[in-house]
Amino acid sequence: MKMTDLLAKKRDGLPLSTEEINYMIQGYTDGSIPDYQMSAMCMAILLRGMDEREVLDLTMAMVHSGEVLDLSPIAGIKADKHSTGGVGDKTSLVLCPMVAACGLKIAKMSGRGLGHTGGTIDKLESFPGFTTELTEEQFFENVNRHGIALMGQTADLAPADKKLYALRDVTGTVPSIPLIVSSIMSKKLASGADVIVLDVKCGDGSFMKTPEAAEELARNLTRIGRLAGRRCAAIITDMDQPLGTAVGNALEVREAISVLSGEDPDGDLMRLCLALGSCMLTEAGFAASREEAEQLLRDAVSSGRALDKLAEMVRAQGGDDAAVYHPELLPQASVTCEVPSLQAGTVSRIHAEAVGLVSMGLGGGRAKKEDRINPAVGVVLHKKLGDVVQEGESLATIYAASEASAAEAVEKLRRCYEFSSGPVERPPFIRKIL
Amino acid sequence: MKMTDLLAKKRDGLPLSTEEINYMIQGYTDGSIPDYQMSAMCMAILLRGMDEREVLDLTMAMVHSGEVLDLSPIAGIKADKHSTGGVGDKTSLVLCPMVAACGLKIAKMSGRGLGHTGGTIDKLESFPGFTTELTEEQFFENVNRHGIALMGQTADLAPADKKLYALRDVTGTVPSIPLIVSSIMSKKLASGADVIVLDVKCGDGSFMKTPEAAEELARNLTRIGRLAGRRCAAIITDMDQPLGTAVGNALEVREAISVLSGEDPDGDLMRLCLALGSCMLTEAGFAASREEAEQLLRDAVSSGRALDKLAEMVRAQGGDDAAVYHPELLPQASVTCEVPSLQAGTVSRIHAEAVGLVSMGLGGGRAKKEDRINPAVGVVLHKKLGDVVQEGESLATIYAASEASAAEAVEKLRRCYEFSSGPVERPPFIRKIL
Repeated sequence: MKMTDLLAKKRDGLPLSTEEINYMIQGYTDGSIPDYQMSAMCMAILLRGMDEREVLDLTMAMVHSGEVLDLSPIAGIKADKHSTGGVGDKTSLVLCPMVAACGLKIAKMSGRGLGHTGGTIDKLESFPGFTTELTEEQFFENVNRHGIALMGQTADLAPADKKLYALRDVTGTVPSIPLIVSSIMSKKLASGADVIVLDVKCGDGSFMKTPEAAEELARNLTRIGRLAGRRCAAIITDMDQPLGTAVGNALEVREAISVLSGEDPDGDLMRLCLALGSCMLTEAGFAASREEAEQLLRDAVSSGRALDKLAEMVRAQGGDDAAVYHPELLPQASVTCEVPSLQAGTVSRIHAEAVGLVSMGLGGGRAKKEDRINPAVGVVLHKKLGDVVQEGESLATIYAASEASAAEAVEKLRRCYEFSSGPVERPPFIRKIL
Repeated sequence: MKMTDLLAKKRDGLPLSTEEINYMIQGYTDGSIPDYQMSAMCMAILLRGMDEREVLDLTMAMVHSGEVLDLSPIAGIKADKHSTGGVGDKTSLVLCPMVAACGLKIAKMSGRGLGHTGGTIDKLESFPGFTTELTEEQFFENVNRHGIALMGQTADLAPADKKLYALRDVTGTVPSIPLIVSSIMSKKLASGADVIVLDVKCGDGSFMKTPEAAEELARNLTRIGRLAGRRCAAIITDMDQPLGTAVGNALEVREAISVLSGEDPDGDLMRLCLALGSCMLTEAGFAASREEAEQLLRDAVSSGRALDKLAEMVRAQGGDDAAVYHPELLPQASVTCEVPSLQAGTVSRIHAEAVGLVSMGLGGGRAKKEDRINPAVGVVLHKKLGDVVQEGESLATIYAASEASAAEAVEKLRRCYEFSSGPVERPPFIRKIL
């Protein structure tokens, strides 16, 4: 078999066989197929497409490029959630304890943040002592005992995806449904959960610019997951602004605690967690309908069991859980200041990615993998899409490590906002549940 | 400017600007743009295409990636010829002396052979002492004095093309008209001739499988040449079998001498040389019509001036020209043997590329750049398309360095032939003159 023949086939719009796809992914993983051939193949796949069988083969070849986690030592059904990424996305912090409080096992791999998006691990490390460096045995034991555990992503899950994603990132081949689907699903399938729920974002700051494109991606993701023998659901949500109000690690934990305490029952974040959680519970057979599932989730919140589950997980992974009940104990920024609006109007746009970069600039995110983050810094937005603002009214509070960085952030954050003189209609936040 | 942005543009079907194309070719030549980005770009260009302005820009960027030969020290109009390659293609050996004998200056860069195709330099080195390692001054002086000179391609002409071609060869991105046109024309334009005539092959063993595809390529080539300010013509010929009868260096020289001596006035090779030569002479203004030009060329042959011009060129480049008039002095193979046909029938197909590989296997070509070639070995075909063959009749003569290699070649050569029981209609050899 020769990679040049495979390139010619895909270039000419022909499907690749299962053997050819296996050969290609194995060769790319072991280095015998060079980057310059793989990048040309990615461009050919992007422009020529792949049929469903090819996407499944590609996904499975990537799953088998490395270790596949066997969760069978954990009793019962295991669920996992994936989001296509977003600024201020603290969904996992709220959703996982809520679902675990209903009895469904959460065995989740998480990542760290890079660039304008934050990572769940970084956020949870706001609790002193909390670690995700668990052995597989500890991870299994924690899920069995507490119903929930978060582990840092090991290097061995779907290494082909890691290599391929880095290549796609620099060759203009990110926005291809077959390549996105195989990338996301290979990691999720290798992580071993029985139920996989996907949060697919649409809008400016995401892969998929339109709800139609996001829906096409979501359908492909769930289809491949089901063909691979897992129970899958997907939700399409709008990412036209940061999710919730806080962007920055401890600030997002604080917001998550507040939502888990039932303080914002109709906000975007709670609505998203109820939608994702009810998909998980129904797919797992814990509820007959999404309505029933939602009631179970609301009960878990109102009874305090969801918040207790967060504290239990923090303790089980070596963390000090005092701040769960006393959020003022979370790391505090030395400097805070407001961002007064220079004009009156209705908020017509908030550039989510730019807000993420403001938080990164304050020290809340990493420009490079090696960077250390400051958990205390970030931004809390007071005005969101459609809100009416008076001149001089505060748009947001900046949490900084120094006066200088705070001043810089104030200027930058102002530029994240756009205003309209008339009313602004906000599109529905949850677009669709598949 | 960022290569990732250029990749996204071309991927989405948008044209690249002149500045973007210059940036890309300059960066690829100096190594700041890596292979894996350029190969993805080649695939995007292949599948998305380029408009005429882009192809011209790409060609000129490649011309200016290295040295551009200034032929102005040579008086008068200079002509050059390019062929898209073929087995047994000794056209330059016949055409260049014929045209030079009519007074049009031939200042030609030539290459060595690789794989199944031979190179003009290798063929001419069958004359002892002949060299193409001329300085630019010697080259100019020879053309001024003798009207003709052949120089080995220097490494500095269109280095971007050299690098890009090697990349395309291993990434399935050879068959793209914008990429083929810029590759061929950048080298020709950098070589500096005023008149460029192109021999575009169609059929099995060539880039362009159909006459329509070959015509599209030919139109693009001449159009870009004209937009770059040169006089251009193209001929489309069928490459359904090797050109002429000989394949192998000294054997092809011998055939060229025979044709230059007027011995096969209506054969494919002479007809092709008359067609290409008459385009050259009319484009250069040496004749008012192709008919008039053809008469000039036939006179050059019948008067012996064309053959004398070959001898003059060989002498001027350090070679012993005795063999021009006494071809039996050319290198002789130690072993010759016939290839008797195992069946009767009409020749319906001769796999040109396979015949080229038989000659290479005998030592007449290079598998790797470093290989030394044996000028004496090769194949002379006695039966061509449409010829009737009796069982046991010889299809070809093998010229070899050993009995063992001869025996192997006999078996391989037989497999190059296909037969039909009925008559075989041969398509016209010269398809079109543009």
